[in-house]
Parts: sequence; C-alpha cells; structure tokens
Amino acid sequence: MMSKIDQANQEAVQRMMQSRPVLVDIGRAKDVIPGMKENLFLHAGPPITWERMSGPLKGAIIGGLIYERMAKNAGEAEAAAAAGRVEFAPCHHYNAVGPMAGVITPSQAVFMIEDKQWGGFTYSNMNEGYGKVLRYGAYDDEVLRRLRWLDEVYAPVVKEALLLSGGIDIKTIIAQALHMGDDGHNRNRATTSLFIRAIASAIVETEYGKKRVYDTPRPDLTNICPFFKETRPAAAAEVLAFMHGNDLTALNAIMASCKSMALAAHGIEHSTLVTTMARNGTDFGIRVSSTGEKWFTAPANVPDGLYFSGFKSSDANRDIGDSVITETVGIGGFAMAAAPAIVSFIGGKPAAAFEATQEMYEITVAENTNFNIPALDFRGTPTGIDVRKVVEKGILPRINTGIAHREPGIGQVGAGIVLPPMECFIEALKELAR
Amino acid sequence: MMSKIDQANQEAVQRMMQSRPVLVDIGRAKDVIPGMKENLFLHAGPPITWERMSGPLKGAIIGGLIYERMAKNAGEAEAAAAAGRVEFAPCHHYNAVGPMAGVITPSQAVFMIEDKQWGGFTYSNMNEGYGKVLRYGAYDDEVLRRLRWLDEVYAPVVKEALLLSGGIDIKTIIAQALHMGDDGHNRNRATTSLFIRAIASAIVETEYGKKRVYDTPRPDLTNICPFFKETRPAAAAEVLAFMHGNDLTALNAIMASCKSMALAAHGIEHSTLVTTMARNGTDFGIRVSSTGEKWFTAPANVPDGLYFSGFKSSDANRDIGDSVITETVGIGGFAMAAAPAIVSFIGGKPAAAFEATQEMYEITVAENTNFNIPALDFRGTPTGIDVRKVVEKGILPRINTGIAHREPGIGQVGAGIVLPPMECFIEALKELAR
Repeated sequence: MMSKIDQANQEAVQRMMQSRPVLVDIGRAKDVIPGMKENLFLHAGPPITWERMSGPLKGAIIGGLIYERMAKNAGEAEAAAAAGRVEFAPCHHYNAVGPMAGVITPSQAVFMIEDKQWGGFTYSNMNEGYGKVLRYGAYDDEVLRRLRWLDEVYAPVVKEALLLSGGIDIKTIIAQALHMGDDGHNRNRATTSLFIRAIASAIVETEYGKKRVYDTPRPDLTNICPFFKETRPAAAAEVLAFMHGNDLTALNAIMASCKSMALAAHGIEHSTLVTTMARNGTDFGIRVSSTGEKWFTAPANVPDGLYFSGFKSSDANRDIGDSVITETVGIGGFAMAAAPAIVSFIGGKPAAAFEATQEMYEITVAENTNFNIPALDFRGTPTGIDVRKVVEKGILPRINTGIAHREPGIGQVGAGIVLPPMECFIEALKELAR
Repeated sequence: MMSKIDQANQEAVQRMMQSRPVLVDIGRAKDVIPGMKENLFLHAGPPITWERMSGPLKGAIIGGLIYERMAKNAGEAEAAAAAGRVEFAPCHHYNAVGPMAGVITPSQAVFMIEDKQWGGFTYSNMNEGYGKVLRYGAYDDEVLRRLRWLDEVYAPVVKEALLLSGGIDIKTIIAQALHMGDDGHNRNRATTSLFIRAIASAIVETEYGKKRVYDTPRPDLTNICPFFKETRPAAAAEVLAFMHGNDLTALNAIMASCKSMALAAHGIEHSTLVTTMARNGTDFGIRVSSTGEKWFTAPANVPDGLYFSGFKSSDANRDIGDSVITETVGIGGFAMAAAPAIVSFIGGKPAAAFEATQEMYEITVAENTNFNIPALDFRGTPTGIDVRKVVEKGILPRINTGIAHREPGIGQVGAGIVLPPMECFIEALKELAR
C-alpha cells in the first residue's frame, strides 16, 4: 500500500504535470505583480541582504537603480542600496522567476503566464541576450540602453501580438523542443525558434510594430540584419531580429511556465516534493511542498563548465539564478538526454548527457506525461524531486547553468553544470520529520 | 596507396562537401531555368512517358495543365498529355529537383540556389504543405488555389525578402537542424523553424508584404492564426502563417541545395560516387559521377511505413520523388540518428534510427565535414555513396520518404522508409567496368 507521503507526492506531481501555463500578456512589474511597489527590487534565489550579495547580484542591483533613475552612477547606487533606500525580496515570493541575478525592478516589463488549469499568474522579465547583460551583473550604458529598448519597443510589440493571437501555449513548445535538441534551460534554440514562428504573424499585424521608433536607441542589430544599416526598420522587424539573434528569447517565459507548474505542486500536506530550487549567487535554497514558505539554504557551489575566450574558472561566481526552476519540474539538466549537442556549450561528452537523465530517475517520483525523450524510447523525463530520495541515495539534482563573473559589471563568462549543496536537502528532511 | 578510383571518389566527395548553396532569389521557371519553355513540364525521377506514369505523377501533370490553363478539366488534361501537347523531362536534366511528383510547370515560382563555392544555380518549387497537394497527385480547386496563392502572394514576398536580406545560407541551416532532431528529408520542423526566423525580419520590411492582396484567394490559415478571421491581414502575416503551418516550408530549398552539392561531385573521371538518385513513381534511377548523363533504372519499390487515418498499404504508390537527393549527399535516411523522433511519423523504434545511420557508413566514402550527429559523438554523417560498396556489401541506401496514393487526385497517405532496387547499382557497376 502506498504511504501517506507517497500518495501526497503523487498528488503533487500530478498537479505539477497538469498545470497548463500559457503566455497571455506583458505588463509593467509594478502594475501587474501583486504586492510589487516602487522601491522593491526582486532578485533570484532565497532572501539575502545587500551586504551578503555576490558581485553579479550587486552589479544587477546597481544597474537596476540607475535604470530606475534612483541613482546616477555605480557609486550612488551602492550608497543607496547600503542605506536601505530600496527593499529586496526573492522573485519567488511574488510568483516570479528571473535568470541569473534575476533582478526585476518596478518599471520593467514582465511576461504574464496564466495557468489555464489551476488559475493564477506567474512572471518573468524579458531576456536580454548573451554576454554583457544586467542579469549577469553588467550595467554599462549599452546594457541600460538595451533594457530601455526592451521595455519601450520590444515589450509593447510582443504584448500586442500576444493579445491579438490569444497567447502562446508554452508547455507544447517545451514538449516539442525536447524532440529538437533542447533541454529547456541552457539550450533554447528550439524553444526560441518555435516561439518566433508562433508569434511572427501576429507581430506583423500589431499597430506598434508598424512604427519606426526613432526616439529609443535600439541595440545594434546589423550583424543579424545587415539591411538595417540603410534605414531604421519597423519595430516589428527589429523585434523579430532581436528574437532571432537571441537563442534565449523563450527562456524567461519557459521559466515562468515552470514556476507555474512548481506552484501547482506546492502546499500538499505530507508531500516531500521539492517545489523551489533557487540561488542568489551566495546561497542555494530549496522549498518543499508541505513545509510552507520556509527556505532551506546552504552556500551555493561554483559551476564546472566551459569558459568564453579570455575567462577561466577562478573568474566564476557561485551558482546563481532562478532558472533551476526548470530542473525542479523535470527539464533542464533532468532532460539532458534530449539535448546531447549541449555538451559543445557546457563541456563533457554526449554520453554524459544520457547518464545525467538516467540518474535523475533515481531521485524523482514520476515520468513526465508531457515531456519525453525520443532517444530514450520516448520515456517521460524524470519529474518531481523527492527530498527523501536525494538524501537516502546521496544523489543530487543535476543542474545546467550559465556562469557569471564574480565581479559586478562584467557579465557572463561561460556555461556548465552544478550541483546543489546536500545540506539543503538534509535540513528539509529534518523539518519534514518534525 | 590509394587507387585511381578511390582518389577520384575523394575528390568528388570533397567537392560535394565544399559546395556552398545559398538561397538567393525566386523566379518564374520559364524565366530563370535555362532551357525551360512554355510547353515543357519537369517531373521527378528518371525520364518517363505519359503512358508509363503512375497515378500521382499523372495527377500532378493534370493539375499542372489546368493550372497553366492548357486544359479546363482532368479529361481535357489527360487528352492533351496523351496527344503530346506538352513535353516531359526530368527536373534533374535542368538542375532542378521537386519532391514527390516533382512537377514544375513553366509559370510556377522556383527557388534559386546559388553555389557560392563552385558557381551555378539549382532550382526547386515552393512547398505546398501536407495532405492534398499537387506533388502527391491531387488537383482539385483547393490545390490549384493554393498554387496560385503561392505564386502570386507567397513567392513575391519571399523573393523580395531574399533580395533584401542577401539570401539564406542553407548549409548552415541543415547543420544546425541535425542538432535539432531533423533528418532534413522527412522531418523538417527545425529547418523550417530556422528558415522562418532567418527571414522574418526581412519579410516584415518588404513592400509587397505590407499589402493586403484581396484579388488572390488565400488558403485557409485561420487554424494557424485565428485572428485572421476578422480581416484580411497583410501579405507578410499570411506568408509567415503559411510557413508556420507547414513544417516542410524549408524542404524544397534544402533539396535544391542538396542538388547543388551533388552536382559539384558530378563528372569526376573514374569516380564511382552516386550523384543522382530519383524516382518518378514507376522507376528508380541513379546516375554516377563518371558515367555522364546516363540513367541506370529499375522498377521502384513500395515504401514501408505508417499510414494516415483511413489509408492502408495497398493504397501506396511506388516510391516517388527527387527528395532522395538528401540521402545522396549524406542527410535524410543517412542522418536518421540525428532524428529519433522521426519514428513517430514513419514507424519503428528510435534504436532503428541509430542503426540506419550506422549501416550507411558501410557504403559511403566520407564522414561529412559540415553535418554531424551529436548523439554519435558529433561524428560526421555518412556521405558519398560508392556504387562498388553497395554492390559488394549488398547494402542499399536507406531512404526516408512520404507515401503518395496510387490513384491520381488523392494525395499523401503516409510516410515511411524505402530502399532503391539493387539492379540500378549493378547496372551502373557494369557500365563503370566498361
């Protein structure tokens, strides 16, 4: 007979898999995220004070303060943060998620994901692309100009297209992308391609997309569309070019969709299922279905991976970001067997990708009914991490991740694999035993 | 020491892999294909007379005659064809290729692929989508309306976008798509997604794309874009919707690009490399690098595969189409290990996809330097079929294919796998021995 805990875990994982996240709209964080306010900055991972923040998170906060015109430069921004002129809270406390530093400031545009099965909304910001970007702790003029363009050109066009088209079913996109070489976390070429083709016609038909927006400087898109050199194209063309130039275009909407799934599994009495994993660049934290809002934290590890030219492992910050929400619901590192080409980005051999997925069946309670892997005979991905199994078997969840430079202001330096600290799971198990 | 033949084969396969096909333009067949004329219809496969044509090829010829206004109905068209009022020739004789029936009529729009390495152009028509389409032998009003829309709305928009953007590098798209679950022949979800995102911005910026073309009836796109119900959208939005609704959007450009590669390997003295494989629905034919324009033909086999609801294996026509040009240059069935999800479309188990690729290394002379398969540790695809090896080892090239109904007027009934007849290779080897 199934134990009370096993029954609870089955209920939780079924709810997780039944969640039906649809990207329906875009709004300003302070207008649409309940509880969001003018002087509140959200960040990735468990709660943390300014003093304990790592370089990349501090860098993103500095950039956010300048972007919000609460500071003129890095010095002013650091002083403002140290003086407590802005409050900090985890994205997760507001049903939001953000990759890497995960900083969401009040006036930023956010994706709104509606769970069509269980109701409610989850949120994430727009993805800025690779390299020197706010979420990796960079904050120079180029970074801030790009953020401005995202909020003033990109977001309004995509919002109008979403309303016109009736939204994008993100779960279907993830399912297809796992048949197209993506893991849904580090490799998002397929999700992004499917996202673009799903919304392209609607983007063409937006009113805002027809405009040529001369008053907002645009990021340099001439390497993507050389014909942009001649004249400023319509906003719709710029938006589609930016999407094409950024294989992570779909990532943030996928993360918010995964948050929707994880949320559906949260709050089930007796369940030992992990419903949050997140890192702030200093600590790794988890939350569990039956233990409410309590975080179980421990120092985050440093990822192991491949570095961009000019960077090395001693440049790496500790593990950072909410993107591990993907592994929490059975994709990302758990679906690596779907994405053997990912090793050219994170290192290792394709065989290791298959082993990673195989191992994750040991610590999960279900095979996903939505997401499966052709090369494993269409077996469902390992889904729903059981805290008990992690501790008993001594097997930690495998996480695919980007790597941020440890200093503020620099950005992404590589990508790789990382494990959470076992202490989080041991502490959670102790709490569950109480 | 390498034999004269082996040296010639290496030269041929290197030329094949160095070919750099870029989709640069679109034109009317009679205006751009050298030698094309008003009363000439091109078709797939080796040469064939009207009398010996199979049902789907006859159906496509009938449709082509009505489309060209050379006949008012099927009866008139059959009489015209039987009376010799139109000439027939293989697409391959004009450096063109067409999927399935492969009928290219004088006024149809064709993709123009330029080989940036070796010079020269290759051609293919626009892809019509799935099911009831001319290339599968259907010719009712819906089929003809769609062809009209392709020539009058779709082609002009895509042409303008190609000229604006400077063209699309198809080889890069194929290489990426093999890391995204495509084989490049039967499964083209990734190539099509990459094609769409590469050209979307340029489509937005075309002048023709901004028009609402009310005088050409459009295919029903409301299942793809429900918001089209309200009003007729801009041509650019229709074009992007049609592309999104058809995972074979990129196929014909890929085929013409493969033709470019095969052409580069043709005409090398002493080479035993296969440079053409093609079927007209009655005969399978091959041509070899060092034996000029001579075809070696034998009756085509019937494919083995999965059938759409309501159809069965006795409905299947013999193997048909020029799309086997993909296998000729090392993708399609030869790259099946890249596309394990394809088995849900053609039948069998994912393991068989890996075996298919492994076996093809036995009959080929190179591992492709452009196209590789992540799950096989990024090994290059088996490329360059050596007639000698096929005959000596008794191993035939594996071909992924669509299945046409044997009667004219019906269309696609399934998809599967097929083998060429061994006689073609034996006859070629005899000729080579002379």
